[in-house]
Amino acid sequence: MKDDKGLLIVLSGPAGVGKGTVCNALRNEDTDIEYSVSATTRQPRAGETHGINYFFKTKQEFEEMIENNKLLEWAKYVDNYYGTPLDYVEETIDKGKDIILEIEVQGAKKVKERYPDGVFIFLMPPSLAELRNRIVGRGTENEDLINKRMNVAREEIDMMESYDYVVENDEVEKAVERIKSIVTAEHCKKDRLIEKYKQLVEVE
Amino acid sequence: MKDDKGLLIVLSGPAGVGKGTVCNALRNEDTDIEYSVSATTRQPRAGETHGINYFFKTKQEFEEMIENNKLLEWAKYVDNYYGTPLDYVEETIDKGKDIILEIEVQGAKKVKERYPDGVFIFLMPPSLAELRNRIVGRGTENEDLINKRMNVAREEIDMMESYDYVVENDEVEKAVERIKSIVTAEHCKKDRLIEKYKQLVEVE
Repeated sequence: MKDDKGLLIVLSGPAGVGKGTVCNALRNEDTDIEYSVSATTRQPRAGETHGINYFFKTKQEFEEMIENNKLLEWAKYVDNYYGTPLDYVEETIDKGKDIILEIEVQGAKKVKERYPDGVFIFLMPPSLAELRNRIVGRGTENEDLINKRMNVAREEIDMMESYDYVVENDEVEKAVERIKSIVTAEHCKKDRLIEKYKQLVEVE
Repeated sequence: MKDDKGLLIVLSGPAGVGKGTVCNALRNEDTDIEYSVSATTRQPRAGETHGINYFFKTKQEFEEMIENNKLLEWAKYVDNYYGTPLDYVEETIDKGKDIILEIEVQGAKKVKERYPDGVFIFLMPPSLAELRNRIVGRGTENEDLINKRMNVAREEIDMMESYDYVVENDEVEKAVERIKSIVTAEHCKKDRLIEKYKQLVEVE
């Protein structure tokens, strides 16, 4: 059985880890998950549709959204604003549907502050998988390269701290299966279900 | 990636909920999960094999296991002992393999005391699913029957409290899929993975 509210699922990870690829692959699967549409002030490119690729906004509209606390998170890159409209996310989860946000680490941090009940998934970069293999393995690399990798790994591990799950992106299909399993498992969590049952029993 | 230790998965729920059926169906699937074999002092029945269906023990052997704290839980029914040998469970998870225990609610409680890190799954009885349907639905039943069901539901909700997950057994195949998803998700939990990464980074 499903609990009444949908889940806010946040998929993040370091730049280049393949968030977009995994998210698109998930989108092509037959799931009930909705996808958050970002708002932006940049011009639509050929083939992009308002409400599907982005919500296209004027600078003034976007700044009003910021002002009125209507964005779950936002950032400015190269004179253009990008952000996650709160209304769409809330309407979706209120309807009992799950919604996924594919987002940079900094944005995910802001979402976590605003919405700590979300399911935060960290897509694990190959550097960490390599770290494991290298430790298990041979140790034929020079010290500089090892140190460099260890520093990157340390930063990535620090990022990981505030997430609920870590999904290795070894193969896109496997990563997608893991994310789907996490969503299923989250719907089975006792803490999400028991309050509802208690209410049903109390109500009588 | 998998963490080093396997998971102890405990599948329980009220009598008659279908624990055995679900566990057997899971066993027929192609998973890496091992199954705990109980010890008992009762006589083997035709077709039962030592080490597969049960570990068959004498009364004295069993009482020595109790004495030496070698059982994760045990109970006595009609002059025979039944219990879960600790060694087999620990050897399995130490090898990095998951192991599932299908067990009565009282036994699950004891396992929880001894092994709080286990993954505790409560198989939801139809009475609770019915409760939901009835609330949503029509209300054509008499008050006595409703009260009786509400009392059963209250007891079941109380049992549920100490579990991590609640899996509805609406269809065996669906219940099996949910359990498999829970196992996959548990292996992706940040808390299970991050310590290992931290150690790898510190070790250097």
